[in-house]
Amino acid sequence: MKVLVVGATGAIGSAVAQTLAERGHEVIRAGRTRGDLQVDITSNASVEALYAAVGRVDAIVSAAGGLFFGPLNEMRPADFNVGLQDKLLGQVRLALLGQHVLTDGGSITLTTGIVADEPIRQGANATAVNAAVEGFVRGAAIELPRGIRINVVSPTVLTESLPLYGSFFPGFESVSAAKAAQAYVRSVEGPQTGRVYRVWQ
Amino acid sequence: MKVLVVGATGAIGSAVAQTLAERGHEVIRAGRTRGDLQVDITSNASVEALYAAVGRVDAIVSAAGGLFFGPLNEMRPADFNVGLQDKLLGQVRLALLGQHVLTDGGSITLTTGIVADEPIRQGANATAVNAAVEGFVRGAAIELPRGIRINVVSPTVLTESLPLYGSFFPGFESVSAAKAAQAYVRSVEGPQTGRVYRVWQ
Ligand SMILES: NC(=O)c1ccc[n+]([C@@H]2O[C@H](COP(=O)([O-])OP(=O)(O)OC[C@H]3O[C@@H](n4cnc5c(N)ncnc54)[C@H](OP(=O)(O)O)[C@@H]3O)[C@@H](O)[C@H]2O)c1
Ligand SMILES: NC(=O)c1ccc[n+]([C@@H]2O[C@H](COP(=O)([O-])OP(=O)(O)OC[C@H]3O[C@@H](n4cnc5c(N)ncnc54)[C@H](OP(=O)(O)O)[C@@H]3O)[C@@H](O)[C@H]2O)c1
Repeated sequence: MKVLVVGATGAIGSAVAQTLAERGHEVIRAGRTRGDLQVDITSNASVEALYAAVGRVDAIVSAAGGLFFGPLNEMRPADFNVGLQDKLLGQVRLALLGQHVLTDGGSITLTTGIVADEPIRQGANATAVNAAVEGFVRGAAIELPRGIRINVVSPTVLTESLPLYGSFFPGFESVSAAKAAQAYVRSVEGPQTGRVYRVWQ
Repeated sequence: MKVLVVGATGAIGSAVAQTLAERGHEVIRAGRTRGDLQVDITSNASVEALYAAVGRVDAIVSAAGGLFFGPLNEMRPADFNVGLQDKLLGQVRLALLGQHVLTDGGSITLTTGIVADEPIRQGANATAVNAAVEGFVRGAAIELPRGIRINVVSPTVLTESLPLYGSFFPGFESVSAAKAAQAYVRSVEGPQTGRVYRVWQ
């Protein structure tokens, strides 16, 4: 299959891209500043230019999207909107505009995270945004035409990311990026739609 | 208790305001165009002016918030952003700014809907937004100080609203607005936090 991976230069996306390439897929790696192609998921024009450049694809995978982290008692509506515009609307944009470049039976796979279900301190925006992306996937799955599927992968904290984020996840088990990548393989190659693949241990 | 109800002139909010008043609470009714006080939940300045006008309150209830409905294959990112800015960020704004005007042990009660869990046609924005509000409540509940609680009520379609929305809900049971209002009473007067009260039958 021809697979576009957005966020392919990141901790999760690089493992996903490598795993899919090892399985024989043609992988196009997009990042904001690195990768084969550059894209900013917060911009319609940028995402449309990406899709015009890659043409028809069999699968779109997103492992990109920023969130706001900070204490609730200081949080302002504009802070909260950061995650809405980036990880939420950014991934929704990839899906809404991407549905039209997918082949019949193609798939969209988005990324959330364990914080959707397991709140952490300073994480109200993350829990809301991740839950919203999972809600979008539930809602979109029943309407996508031509056998197009949509799923989402919710990883726990990556072992590779513990130096960065470990202190926010006391007692949480971590998983390797390579293990999380298997869930993206299930979504891309498998038959399911509207699913949340939780990789929490 | 002194209770501020935002959206108090609507189908749900008017039943909530009436039920709370009948239980002896001092109810302040806010709406966009009607009610004791006017507010636009999409504006910081407007919400701040509302809170300045009402002063300290024991409970904030929101039964307001618009969504985008439309077929997924025509949906644009800007359409999707409608619900993000209105029902999602609007209610989050009421909570983020409202935490500072609540008395110790006070509460915030927001509104979602059954579409959070049960997708309907043309409802991808509604499912995402409702899921996000429920996620926000999960995340905020663990951080609110001074015993302040936050919950959300998820009603199914109201019997009173069947003429408007019934065709989107084939086979769904409806509930009366008065029945849905009881869940708001549980949230305002009860001890729980981080809860979704589902009123689905
Ligand atoms: N790491 C974890 O432990 C973990 C666990 C669960 C969920 N997640 C979620 O998974 C997603 C990816 O996390 P990560 O740790 O892999 O991130 P990361 O290492 O920081 O990588 C982010 C990737 O996204 C790209 N990117 C950033 N902003 C972008 C934009 N506006 N438009 C297009 N691409 C953009 C980056 O491109 P360039 O590098 O080319 O600039 C990079 O490829 C995030 O949403 C995160 O919340 C992460
Ligand atoms: N009705 C149902 O069957 C049902 C079921 C489940 C969930 N819900 C959800 O419950 C919420 C309320 O629904 P409803 O049917 O009761 O709505 P409604 O009858 O249309 O009433 C909306 C209320 O919100 C106010 N409002 C609208 N926009 C506002 C804004 N920008 N700022 C402040 N207030 C605003 C209106 O004020 P004015 O009238 O003064 O202009 C009115 O009080 C919605 O989020 C809806 O999705 C409804």
